[in-house]
Amino acid sequence: MSSFATTPLTRVRRAAERADYQQATVEAILDAGWVCQVAFSVDGQPHCLPTAHWRVGDTLYIHGSNGSRMMRALAEGTPACVNVTLLDGLVLARSAFNHSMNYRSAMLYGSFRKVEDAAEKWASFEAFMDKVEAGRRALVRMPDANEFAATSVLALTIREAVAKQRSGPPEDDVADLGLPVWAGVWPLETRFGTPIPDPATASCPA
Amino acid sequence: MSSFATTPLTRVRRAAERADYQQATVEAILDAGWVCQVAFSVDGQPHCLPTAHWRVGDTLYIHGSNGSRMMRALAEGTPACVNVTLLDGLVLARSAFNHSMNYRSAMLYGSFRKVEDAAEKWASFEAFMDKVEAGRRALVRMPDANEFAATSVLALTIREAVAKQRSGPPEDDVADLGLPVWAGVWPLETRFGTPIPDPATASCPA
Repeated sequence: MSSFATTPLTRVRRAAERADYQQATVEAILDAGWVCQVAFSVDGQPHCLPTAHWRVGDTLYIHGSNGSRMMRALAEGTPACVNVTLLDGLVLARSAFNHSMNYRSAMLYGSFRKVEDAAEKWASFEAFMDKVEAGRRALVRMPDANEFAATSVLALTIREAVAKQRSGPPEDDVADLGLPVWAGVWPLETRFGTPIPDPATASCPA
Repeated sequence: MSSFATTPLTRVRRAAERADYQQATVEAILDAGWVCQVAFSVDGQPHCLPTAHWRVGDTLYIHGSNGSRMMRALAEGTPACVNVTLLDGLVLARSAFNHSMNYRSAMLYGSFRKVEDAAEKWASFEAFMDKVEAGRRALVRMPDANEFAATSVLALTIREAVAKQRSGPPEDDVADLGLPVWAGVWPLETRFGTPIPDPATASCPA
């Protein structure tokens, strides 16, 4: 199984036993998340912007309007950091100090490049639609020339990356085990609810 | 109702109709989230770190081990950006271009200060425990002197902030309304599942 090399940026120092450099672990977290946060600086001011992401092989894609500040700054190759965090539960311990969270987090470092090749850009749109729903891209109207041109796609090669995860029960001090307070995990579950059809559908011929 | 002033950093340029500068809106998003992402730079390299957060009035708190790189960098007052994003659903349109997401996002800009005052630090721990579960701090063992000293608490005054939100159905072009593809919203619901008691409880006297 392939793993990422540990670098000064990705070496996990705190709770190092939670670090996982396996490519498959990082990719699974990226694929399970719909939104990442991208950190980058403009004139020394850091920004932390949420945006949709998707993955094709070792490439992470994001997209946006050509004119957006984030797209323009990142297209210039400024250093970036991408995080995807999935929260799996609250860990309730008997001491305040040992409370924790169960989570899966993927951290990527690198610089984006603007996808200029039309074929790669088109394939990335197809892959994004596939992530939303398999088969959907054959049913929707794919981007026309104006929409295609108005959207920037940026790509980050997933090379400097690490996952950090916690699961399982609290780890209380032995001396605290007898305290009369409930301890354990409140799992957090994220799932799709009942689909809500677009009201506009009622008035359309299909 | 109190609102934040719009600044060059918080002025929403894209989909500006989704921006909301009301204090109550920003605070509600912060309070509904368990984890924020904090962006900051060290030697020109941006980082995007997920961490638990909580709020007391106009102050956002985060905490961590004294030795952590993030705590040390932020305690020096380096510029930071904090984002909390709650994903409410996928918005499926009839055209690829009009697909979207429903979300609530709060963006804060500013610099953290290290909480040096012991009373404020203790009150912040109490508030954090209150966020986890009302009444819990009376039942758990609160931090002892060593735990108290080993943990840094950082505070950010919520002054430069904005929320951005989307809700509702897709907004398709009229010409696409007849396309034979399902359109609407897949709501994403995050909720607590069945609590999982700590196995260690079975062997403890309580």
